[in-house]
Amino acid sequence: MREFFLKASTAFTSDFSLNDIAGAGRMDVVCRCVTSALWLSDELRKDTRFYVVLEGKPQPPKLIKFDPLKMRRVYPDERNIASHIRIALTGKRQSGIEVETKSFEEFLKENSDKQLIYLHKDGKDIREFEFESDTFFILGDNKGLDESTERILDKLNAEKLSIGKHTYMASHVISIVHNELDRREV
Amino acid sequence: MREFFLKASTAFTSDFSLNDIAGAGRMDVVCRCVTSALWLSDELRKDTRFYVVLEGKPQPPKLIKFDPLKMRRVYPDERNIASHIRIALTGKRQSGIEVETKSFEEFLKENSDKQLIYLHKDGKDIREFEFESDTFFILGDNKGLDESTERILDKLNAEKLSIGKHTYMASHVISIVHNELDRREV
Repeated sequence: MREFFLKASTAFTSDFSLNDIAGAGRMDVVCRCVTSALWLSDELRKDTRFYVVLEGKPQPPKLIKFDPLKMRRVYPDERNIASHIRIALTGKRQSGIEVETKSFEEFLKENSDKQLIYLHKDGKDIREFEFESDTFFILGDNKGLDESTERILDKLNAEKLSIGKHTYMASHVISIVHNELDRREV
Repeated sequence: MREFFLKASTAFTSDFSLNDIAGAGRMDVVCRCVTSALWLSDELRKDTRFYVVLEGKPQPPKLIKFDPLKMRRVYPDERNIASHIRIALTGKRQSGIEVETKSFEEFLKENSDKQLIYLHKDGKDIREFEFESDTFFILGDNKGLDESTERILDKLNAEKLSIGKHTYMASHVISIVHNELDRREV
């Protein structure tokens, strides 16, 4: 199982306009990460889960969990994904996308028995790293992770891995991590 | 210089609604490819150009050329990129995004002196390949390239390269290709 967990430090936690997804605390960043994590060209990745904690106004934190095995009528464009996030935030039930009031740190601790990997440009080279079968990847959004969050990751012995020396968009990082793991499975 | 050229076989060639980008012949696929090709986390890639030929109704083909050195007030979310494509299609001038009436084949032939690379899952492994300094990558959209297009690429001796054994979204392919080239430049 591959799991990806994004800390979206400004993404709104209540209703927002589908005509201004970027204006909803950079919800566009979240939507692109969902697509990168869960989609191949024409099918969902069944071995992957995606989680995001929204930390923007007005009611942070909100944890949203995406399970592709249960998702129905979700498409990979930003507007469609945002529409499902909006439904989740308004408290309506939908298959495969659930919301909880839970912080980044709480959810991380729940998953601390897994192989925690913090993706950061100054980490060890991902291509040289040996993965276990269950991996839990942690990503910052366009602002990166702050120091107190990095200390939490340190305490939990998260491994710091890098895909390269540039600072990439979180969604692009996810695509590159998937590809590295895919290549090893063949 | 890295250049990416997408054949968008159904993307609309006239005005469309920003509230239904996916419905405009999968213009969302085009927008995501623009973002993957031209953006790092918080800056544009200055060494890259992106081109797309739109082949959908009502007036195909339309070639759109993106030059990040000249682009102004373009943001990486699908809606913003789609809004600039729309401006281009209505014939208004804007810096860094130009439109021409030109077919896939014509534009490819104009670029046939470059190292042409067709990205396809059954090609040679990209990690083993030696790139020249100027590379011109060709991608199909969610439908892939048809046989007659593949014959054109064959005639021009395009090299067929693969990033892995899955069929990935075109935008994800671009991210992975960029990463491979980035790693070699460091």
